[in-house]
Amino acid sequence: MMSFKTTTLLAATAVTLTAFSMPSMAADKVYRLKMAETWASNFPIFGEAPRNMAKMAEEMSGGRLKITIDSSNKHKAPLGIFDMVRSGQYDMGHSASYYWKGKVPNTLYFTTMPFGMITPEQYGWFYHGGGMELMEKVYQPFGLMSFPGGNTGNQMGGWFQKEINSLDDLQGLKMRIPGFAGEVLAKLGAKPTNIASGELYTALERNTIDALEWVGPSLDLRMGFHKIAPYYYTGWHEPATELQFLVNKRSFDRLPEDLQRILTTSMKLASYEMYVQSYHESGTNWVTMKSEYPNVQVKTFPKDVLAAMKKANQELLEEKAAADPLAKEILDSQAEYLKTARVWTNISDRAYLDSLETISE
Amino acid sequence: MMSFKTTTLLAATAVTLTAFSMPSMAADKVYRLKMAETWASNFPIFGEAPRNMAKMAEEMSGGRLKITIDSSNKHKAPLGIFDMVRSGQYDMGHSASYYWKGKVPNTLYFTTMPFGMITPEQYGWFYHGGGMELMEKVYQPFGLMSFPGGNTGNQMGGWFQKEINSLDDLQGLKMRIPGFAGEVLAKLGAKPTNIASGELYTALERNTIDALEWVGPSLDLRMGFHKIAPYYYTGWHEPATELQFLVNKRSFDRLPEDLQRILTTSMKLASYEMYVQSYHESGTNWVTMKSEYPNVQVKTFPKDVLAAMKKANQELLEEKAAADPLAKEILDSQAEYLKTARVWTNISDRAYLDSLETISE
Repeated sequence: MMSFKTTTLLAATAVTLTAFSMPSMAADKVYRLKMAETWASNFPIFGEAPRNMAKMAEEMSGGRLKITIDSSNKHKAPLGIFDMVRSGQYDMGHSASYYWKGKVPNTLYFTTMPFGMITPEQYGWFYHGGGMELMEKVYQPFGLMSFPGGNTGNQMGGWFQKEINSLDDLQGLKMRIPGFAGEVLAKLGAKPTNIASGELYTALERNTIDALEWVGPSLDLRMGFHKIAPYYYTGWHEPATELQFLVNKRSFDRLPEDLQRILTTSMKLASYEMYVQSYHESGTNWVTMKSEYPNVQVKTFPKDVLAAMKKANQELLEEKAAADPLAKEILDSQAEYLKTARVWTNISDRAYLDSLETISE
Repeated sequence: MMSFKTTTLLAATAVTLTAFSMPSMAADKVYRLKMAETWASNFPIFGEAPRNMAKMAEEMSGGRLKITIDSSNKHKAPLGIFDMVRSGQYDMGHSASYYWKGKVPNTLYFTTMPFGMITPEQYGWFYHGGGMELMEKVYQPFGLMSFPGGNTGNQMGGWFQKEINSLDDLQGLKMRIPGFAGEVLAKLGAKPTNIASGELYTALERNTIDALEWVGPSLDLRMGFHKIAPYYYTGWHEPATELQFLVNKRSFDRLPEDLQRILTTSMKLASYEMYVQSYHESGTNWVTMKSEYPNVQVKTFPKDVLAAMKKANQELLEEKAAADPLAKEILDSQAEYLKTARVWTNISDRAYLDSLETISE
């Protein structure tokens, strides 16, 4: 890899060169971008995506684009990325769009939605179904650009101390489940709370909470929840969690066109790569987990519980759509796209997997 | 985008610059690569992937990496890509690895396998499960590098004039189905044939063949098969068809490191992007097809037919593994990876989709 030690290597010969090779002047300048991430340092998978991105960008640019990353240990504002990138304190951020719903409600819809699209469907929506354009509509007024930043795949419904057999079992259930899904459960009588990740294990072990959701086997194994909660429920609330790269528009506009393209390409590839890495680690970690704790039981919520969750979810969505035309535009676009893409999901991968099961020993 | 009209813009000032900025000399040279594709010109989706790749590479390199693409109309050797890239007649190719199985049998395993991995599982195998390393083992002796080149998603089992209700219905069935899947069907009494794409519609219409497989709704709609065959079977034989970028190793080694990284990144992203595009077009084309011809019926082969196909497939795989240690190494690696990844597929997307169905109206 080429590297450039100074920002203007050619400064000494600038006069000679200007007349016939202005572009090569820009080609030797080093551009430095500062990024803040929501995650603590060494956070697996989530924290690897922005580093993968920065490495690609630096290598592809021959060292002309250098991106440094500050973890939350340093900037102390894990949920302040939106503001720090907006103000220009950082040029970029790595986080998740739904963290800003308290500030800009319509940012909620660009991470994942309960009962919504699965990962390949959602990428189809972003890139071919109008999703990117709608995300731009939401972020543009703040001088921000937002891009997919890595997908976890379908998240698990969480770890439970007791089985959920009916809606009654949700009454008063203390569960760590943030965001929109928490609102859905609250409507059904549960008591959703948010607890910092470092305290989750103890809270579940001491029955301060009865249940929690985190991510899935790709990250849950490291948290050890399988040692203290026997039931692991399949997902309903985050079928395609997509993280986010945020870029300050002024910082982006200052880059020459080739580096802009290197940056957007690196972000896009890093997001797909995180999806594949998550898929991989979910499988391998699940196998490890099962061999360590063979009694972990995978459960799916009963039909009437799921139906009630879906109904509560739908009512909340209708409230959002009624209150804001842009929310309605986004939700209608997602609902329409899901309908079309799901037909294909069902006759392709799903029909294939179902047909294999009929002949498995 | 910057563009460079001459290969050595800085030649005139070379002496002045050499002492302290050698890298910027290389940074102004334009590298040109010639690529041959299997597809005819304007072939949708498959032909868009290499063009998407070339455009990214040119833009990210500020015009220093230019890739021109010859379609099969021009080079006249759609299935000669391997040889033309090996000899250096072309620097790169876009094709599919299983086309070379007659020449190098172990290339068969890097496109997709009957009853094998679905797309995200297979990407996991390529990038985290040893797939890329095994592919290198197969291609390296020929001075070739091979990379994923775009995924179609799960391919459909094909268009049939008559329903397949039992193994008897396969006896003497004339079906256009190339490759390994054709061998599987031949073992069960069918008569697989290969027919050039331009003649497929007429062959099916005039009952020269009883059935054919092509790709899936993403490409089948344009062929019009839905107008002349009522049954559309779900897939078993190509669950994750991955196309291929081939690169001549000497051509690759001549590129400076930053352009090498730009090239590999562009190929990798173009392959994921083709997967998402195929997913998108499969859904939208299926909806169009159904509105035009509402009587098209989606069918899945009966259990005993699928079980016999799987058994025949397994026997063929065992023959391949017994005859060649590298084939055995690849097939064992795939089987092992599939087992681990499939557990995750089943408790994530599949469990989610199944649970939604229980509450759908």
